[in-house]
Amino acid sequence: MSTFEQYLQSQAAERDAAGLTRRVVAGVGHQAIDLAGNDYLGLRRDPAVIDAAVAALEYFGSGAGASRLVTGTWPIHEDLETALAEHLQMESALVFSTGYQANLAAMTALADDDTLIVSDAHNHASIIDGARLSRAAVEVVPHGDLAAYERALQERTQARAVIVVESIYSVFGDTSPVAELADLAARYDALLVVDEAHGLGVVGDHGEGRVASLGLAGAPHIVVTVSLAKALSSQGGAVLGSDLVRSHLINTARPFIYDTGLAPVSAGGALGALDVLIERPSLAKEVREIMGELAAACGVPTPAGAVLSVAMPGPREALAAVDVCAAHGVRIGCFRPPSTPDGSSRLRLTAHAGLSAKDVEHCARVLRTVSR
Amino acid sequence: MSTFEQYLQSQAAERDAAGLTRRVVAGVGHQAIDLAGNDYLGLRRDPAVIDAAVAALEYFGSGAGASRLVTGTWPIHEDLETALAEHLQMESALVFSTGYQANLAAMTALADDDTLIVSDAHNHASIIDGARLSRAAVEVVPHGDLAAYERALQERTQARAVIVVESIYSVFGDTSPVAELADLAARYDALLVVDEAHGLGVVGDHGEGRVASLGLAGAPHIVVTVSLAKALSSQGGAVLGSDLVRSHLINTARPFIYDTGLAPVSAGGALGALDVLIERPSLAKEVREIMGELAAACGVPTPAGAVLSVAMPGPREALAAVDVCAAHGVRIGCFRPPSTPDGSSRLRLTAHAGLSAKDVEHCARVLRTVSR
Ligand SMILES: Cc1ncc(COP(=O)(O)O)c(C=O)c1O
Ligand SMILES: Cc1ncc(COP(=O)(O)O)c(C=O)c1O
Repeated sequence: MSTFEQYLQSQAAERDAAGLTRRVVAGVGHQAIDLAGNDYLGLRRDPAVIDAAVAALEYFGSGAGASRLVTGTWPIHEDLETALAEHLQMESALVFSTGYQANLAAMTALADDDTLIVSDAHNHASIIDGARLSRAAVEVVPHGDLAAYERALQERTQARAVIVVESIYSVFGDTSPVAELADLAARYDALLVVDEAHGLGVVGDHGEGRVASLGLAGAPHIVVTVSLAKALSSQGGAVLGSDLVRSHLINTARPFIYDTGLAPVSAGGALGALDVLIERPSLAKEVREIMGELAAACGVPTPAGAVLSVAMPGPREALAAVDVCAAHGVRIGCFRPPSTPDGSSRLRLTAHAGLSAKDVEHCARVLRTVSR
Repeated sequence: MSTFEQYLQSQAAERDAAGLTRRVVAGVGHQAIDLAGNDYLGLRRDPAVIDAAVAALEYFGSGAGASRLVTGTWPIHEDLETALAEHLQMESALVFSTGYQANLAAMTALADDDTLIVSDAHNHASIIDGARLSRAAVEVVPHGDLAAYERALQERTQARAVIVVESIYSVFGDTSPVAELADLAARYDALLVVDEAHGLGVVGDHGEGRVASLGLAGAPHIVVTVSLAKALSSQGGAVLGSDLVRSHLINTARPFIYDTGLAPVSAGGALGALDVLIERPSLAKEVREIMGELAAACGVPTPAGAVLSVAMPGPREALAAVDVCAAHGVRIGCFRPPSTPDGSSRLRLTAHAGLSAKDVEHCARVLRTVSR
């Protein structure tokens, strides 16, 4: 057996022994309620979204056919960019094939070896990977610790600085102090990058996200990244900023330049979902209200977004809760060490607009049982 | 103005002054022939592919809704994985949301700080980024230089080694010595990773790619990566290897674990295209024959795949050739320094099955003019 096979086998054996082997998990059909996925507005199967996607597919073909700089830019990409920029109140947007690649692109294009990246300890893997690829100096600061952010900026020796946070954190569902950080960035001549993957479609009167709802969108020192695969129920990502930021990304971001453009059908689906949200801005409020009912059932405060994290005594209790929920037709997620940033065991559940009052009541009843 | 804006502006001014500003490029409608994109089998608008994609969209919804480890794995993902593994004659496959992320995943999961990566100088950006993210020691060897590959392996001090190449290089369209490298990998107890982005669908009697057509598929020391956005005309990527490699990726590859699953519609489109290829394996031969005619028109040898590179005297001549082709309704690409690995200026053009004899003759006529 090769050294490589031995290595893979021993790694697998270690995982198995620790009970930490990961497996792919099937999507939720009509027989259960999905409180684990990120389809916050419940638009994955919305007829208007499906129609918009089918129209893009039939009009533009299945894939983009090439990178955006070769012959892979279709009108639907630019329509989506215009609509996203408008909805998030930013000057312009550039669409990517995934949210992951949007973050890799933002970090690598906006930071270099003469930049300090000040990165929150709870940031998403795509931000962390992007920061590492950028060759910038990276200072990871304790979660949400404003004084630590400021200290890092004060002590910087690099020409430029970038602060990077999530608006709603994907793991714990809590928020970052975006207004304070925007102020800090302005005072220290830094750029603030806010990942709104879990804010878009959920936060704000029109689901415009936290940055826009705080009145910060369009400020020249703020860049926003989004995923099109959560509230917009499709696939892809985008980076939003000034026109200058957009053309800088087109010219320098490898995950944009060397990647096939987003499939027109996914651009069409995302645009269809955005159109639904624009027509029915109350969807954002609806998902937050449902979140409120689920949080109350779990006996925890209502979070700002659609992600709820419930602390459990230990990993066994967390797994048992997931199983009880599943037995009652409610799918929720859980995090156990070593997957949580703080070593705790937690349930993770998400709210979705479009759940009926009856479904919400059923979920709340089940959650009351398991979170006692 | 902030330091950041000044920086972006000076970068933009430098690019403009050097004539190197990149812009997005529109897709090709019916009024022109696209010899620049990567839709090698001409399936982007094939009715069977569109039907398969529409069916997946209507059955599974627009996006996957969550990461593959949460609730984002749909039967179409697993059908596609089974079909890809079978067609490429590998034990198993894991599907990603882009080919870029498939390469990031392969490199980061299969190499670590006790691994030497021996990487060809012409490798794609996604391989380079993956190698950098992996924390492995990376030795970049001169393009195709077998002796340099061997020297790197001989001198390695790390526990493991990974050789990584493209089967058909995306820039110059030439091949790597896959059989010799497989032998080298076996002799030096290394893993060989072959990116078949431009081999799949084009090389081999059934478009099974170079690794399989050389009888090397399924060897335990060989891993293959593919893009679903070229011959399969969709979006996404895959890593193919043993079952052990697949589960290792599921457990350790961040671009898999922390990314929304591939949109079911793109999985459906790729599977539809693969089904077309399985039914009409002659498509692979057809695209190679068309490539032969285009290469003859340019007065250069026929490449093994569907990518042709034609050396030009300088950047001005290359740009002029692109313009003349465009004026005759033929879109081709070009590379100028600093975008070429060797500083040369080159036309890049691709062949596509499904072009009519009349279209091929027209393209050949135009290419004869510009490549004199
Ligand atoms: C905060 C955050 N950013 C980025 C991403 C990546 O987005 P995508 O799934 O579209 O690649 C995710 C989730 O996947 C996320 O939770
Ligand atoms: C050799 C090679 N590998 C990987 C990729 C990335 O594939 P994708 O466009 O599906 O992300 C490309 C092209 O984009 C490529 O040319």
